[in-house]
Amino acid sequence: MRIHIQNPVNDPLFLFSRAMWDAAASRAPGVGARHEVTIGDSDADFAAGMAEAEALITEIGVVAAKFPCRAPHLKMLFITNAGLDRLAPFDWLPPGAALLNNAGVHATKAGEFAIMSVLMLANRVPEMVTHQRAGRWQKLWGAVLDGRRVTVVGLGSLGGAAATQAERFGMHVTGMRATAAPHPHCAEVITVADLDHVLPRTEFLVLACPLTDATRGMIDRRRLRLLPRGAGVVNIGRGALIDQDALCDLLDDGHLSGAVLDVFTPEPIPAGHRLWTTRNLIVSPHTAADDPNTYNARSLDMFFDNLRAWREGRAMPNLFDTARGY
Amino acid sequence: MRIHIQNPVNDPLFLFSRAMWDAAASRAPGVGARHEVTIGDSDADFAAGMAEAEALITEIGVVAAKFPCRAPHLKMLFITNAGLDRLAPFDWLPPGAALLNNAGVHATKAGEFAIMSVLMLANRVPEMVTHQRAGRWQKLWGAVLDGRRVTVVGLGSLGGAAATQAERFGMHVTGMRATAAPHPHCAEVITVADLDHVLPRTEFLVLACPLTDATRGMIDRRRLRLLPRGAGVVNIGRGALIDQDALCDLLDDGHLSGAVLDVFTPEPIPAGHRLWTTRNLIVSPHTAADDPNTYNARSLDMFFDNLRAWREGRAMPNLFDTARGY
Repeated sequence: MRIHIQNPVNDPLFLFSRAMWDAAASRAPGVGARHEVTIGDSDADFAAGMAEAEALITEIGVVAAKFPCRAPHLKMLFITNAGLDRLAPFDWLPPGAALLNNAGVHATKAGEFAIMSVLMLANRVPEMVTHQRAGRWQKLWGAVLDGRRVTVVGLGSLGGAAATQAERFGMHVTGMRATAAPHPHCAEVITVADLDHVLPRTEFLVLACPLTDATRGMIDRRRLRLLPRGAGVVNIGRGALIDQDALCDLLDDGHLSGAVLDVFTPEPIPAGHRLWTTRNLIVSPHTAADDPNTYNARSLDMFFDNLRAWREGRAMPNLFDTARGY
Repeated sequence: MRIHIQNPVNDPLFLFSRAMWDAAASRAPGVGARHEVTIGDSDADFAAGMAEAEALITEIGVVAAKFPCRAPHLKMLFITNAGLDRLAPFDWLPPGAALLNNAGVHATKAGEFAIMSVLMLANRVPEMVTHQRAGRWQKLWGAVLDGRRVTVVGLGSLGGAAATQAERFGMHVTGMRATAAPHPHCAEVITVADLDHVLPRTEFLVLACPLTDATRGMIDRRRLRLLPRGAGVVNIGRGALIDQDALCDLLDDGHLSGAVLDVFTPEPIPAGHRLWTTRNLIVSPHTAADDPNTYNARSLDMFFDNLRAWREGRAMPNLFDTARGY
């Protein structure tokens, strides 16, 4: 297969190299061999690659900048990101090309970030940091996770990993997703229809779902107020899932005890924005789910898994549903 | 048995009540019944209680304030704290009275705090908080714990719980204690004689040992410099285990990437102290190991376990070794 890999510029931690490709190919018996692979990062590299490529491997920023474009042989576009909401609507996709994401690559890292965030809320670290900023020694007692209630919105690879970690710590895990099918690491699974009933008994709310027309603004001011006093919020999904201003108001007035946020609207957070200074709020710069030590290698393994499925006539596990939005 | 419980003043979260006692007694078949129990918090309560008591249950601050004192019948002094370093030397202990601590009560909470802290270092949260304080959006990529190296100093209930959690996340755990006997959750156990060899390959250093003559100042500037560039430090033991000033210097110059500290010298941290503002340092106000939801109940369970051992002529599991210091 003719494959082009387009690296981003200005992102040295996430570059694909020939050695990385060769290593991944050697881990993929049957589908790793006999490809013609070009790797580049310039406009000329991209144009030359796309004139011939049957598969393109690249990250979302390149796709946003370059498509629509002439890609006469393209059969597979593998994007090394999971949330592709900023590429919607997907009318730029060349006809006949399958769109794939790398959902699953982020699971381990995101699961660890999520349970870290829940532990930080349970130990009241956001409040401690606020006191530290004021140079104020004040005892703040946290409590262990065993038996406490967490609601995880979204049970894809991120939310699934969060639920798995929470269950390991003995938490009562309620999962929410589009259909209320059971999940092996949730005590109960609900749909959005039951969200308002679950929020009043949610001590920790973890948002880990994709941003779609159905989820945009889902956690609005009214729903945040349904959380019990002292609850905490984690967001590793997308900033626009939540009413950020209402969240800040409820942290300011003490209804919520803390928040650990990895995603925002907009990003980067502008200078002077209240998110920087709202008390008991920890800002992580949209890096919760990505581990540069393993990211590219695992993305390539996933590309080969999908290539294998395609060649064997099976459904590709990472085929992106452009209508659904994830 | 005549038992007096002296509550601290000004510590409403950790008060013993009659109901709490009755509940614990009912959980302790054989040793819970037929005691004469007084509970108080005033000087008069203490004097009246000690005139008769064979056992005293209280916290370290009361002991520091009241002893030496007249306690003619005292056989057991159960202190609801684990680290008793501030009571050394123990020459105030009434002759014939056994000194007990509540080591073990803190394990679950301390283990969760420790792994939270390691996750925070791995996810570079201390650096994120420093950037947030400056209103600066800067991507900082963390990495998962699997396969990474943590050294846990002290393998008592705190360190043992930290090692257990770290192992669950796939870390390579090196434990350090007075004797190099194997530990079920450590890949290797060393003594202080090997510490200098282990530090250069330690990504995360977790201090969880008691403060004794042998451990005071153990992590000095030279040893902190032996850690590899980018390493992180957690301290849930005692502030005086470490050269705090050297730690701050190495955070300032970037040799260390972060620190999460629960203990300090002195406490409270004075106003204006550099600990409040040193970059990439998170201050927790000495609350890592205590969970008010479970603390007193578990302490009483432990008291009854020791009482049972004493009545049966077995060694009391929480007998404090005043010579050793833990």
